[in-house]
Amino acid sequence: MSNFKILKSERKHNGKIFNLIVDEIEYASGNRAVHEVAEHPGGAVAVPVMDDGTLLLVRQYRYPIQKYILELPAGKLSPGEDPQLCAARELEEETGYSAEKLTKLTGIYTTPGFCTELLHIYLAEGLKKSPAGQQLEEGEWSLTLERVPFAKAVAMIEKGEIVDGKSICGILLAEKILKQ
Amino acid sequence: MSNFKILKSERKHNGKIFNLIVDEIEYASGNRAVHEVAEHPGGAVAVPVMDDGTLLLVRQYRYPIQKYILELPAGKLSPGEDPQLCAARELEEETGYSAEKLTKLTGIYTTPGFCTELLHIYLAEGLKKSPAGQQLEEGEWSLTLERVPFAKAVAMIEKGEIVDGKSICGILLAEKILKQ
Repeated sequence: MSNFKILKSERKHNGKIFNLIVDEIEYASGNRAVHEVAEHPGGAVAVPVMDDGTLLLVRQYRYPIQKYILELPAGKLSPGEDPQLCAARELEEETGYSAEKLTKLTGIYTTPGFCTELLHIYLAEGLKKSPAGQQLEEGEWSLTLERVPFAKAVAMIEKGEIVDGKSICGILLAEKILKQ
Repeated sequence: MSNFKILKSERKHNGKIFNLIVDEIEYASGNRAVHEVAEHPGGAVAVPVMDDGTLLLVRQYRYPIQKYILELPAGKLSPGEDPQLCAARELEEETGYSAEKLTKLTGIYTTPGFCTELLHIYLAEGLKKSPAGQQLEEGEWSLTLERVPFAKAVAMIEKGEIVDGKSICGILLAEKILKQ
């Protein structure tokens, strides 16, 4: 399966979102290489489509890119958490809506070249305002809800106005299901 | 624009693929938080569609997830490199084909919550075998070329057989252009 062996594996940083592991490997040829791995717990994403066809999106400030961008509601898995429950929880916390029906669309590796992150994406339908309403954490200070007609969201992807990878995957996959 | 200030910014690791920066911030409330940022140079992706409608994909072993997965040809930007030239270069190196025409589809942030990576995605058409042929680096020892009819690649996304985020974005966006 592989033509290398691991010579050394070093945990360089234990973080809040990811850990950094640096492995030194040796190929069968004798040459050596280094692999950096961001160890991430994975997460879940909701594609929340209201009964009238409106998509619920969240706009938030993303610290690494220093921009506000429009995304699907999503979040990290808590240890041992079921991905579907995570999608339901993040949807409710970020939008104040709960879903009667969640349908798995797919799972995606966001950056398999250097990170373990796997995101589970669910179509969320039968949306109702939840009694608790939106419950944002302090880190989500910038988050605002935006209601966008589904076809407009697809057009925003084509025009480069939605640029978040997981959101593009989720919306374009949901479009296929909803058209059936 | 923001309700925080940076108290401390520490470069924890300078890597081959990304650097790790850990910032400590203070909100206007006085509460503090830590942001881990994977600083990545960005990259480019090609969606190579042959004249007969066949999509050229590459299957390769991805170290972080310990799996072989099917992806679009892609790679990191060299310092100062034009993204379109990067897409053309990576296409030729990984598949042995060059493109007469590259059309920008979009740019995606792969993981804007913790990484700066921006990937520029191009539809690649007018494909011809290049004189140099495939030129793999040692780190790409596992890479093999797979020719998949375009409609089959879309079906593989729907069935969860293509699970790489950038590849799902690129193929589903190209599908829209090609259908026009």
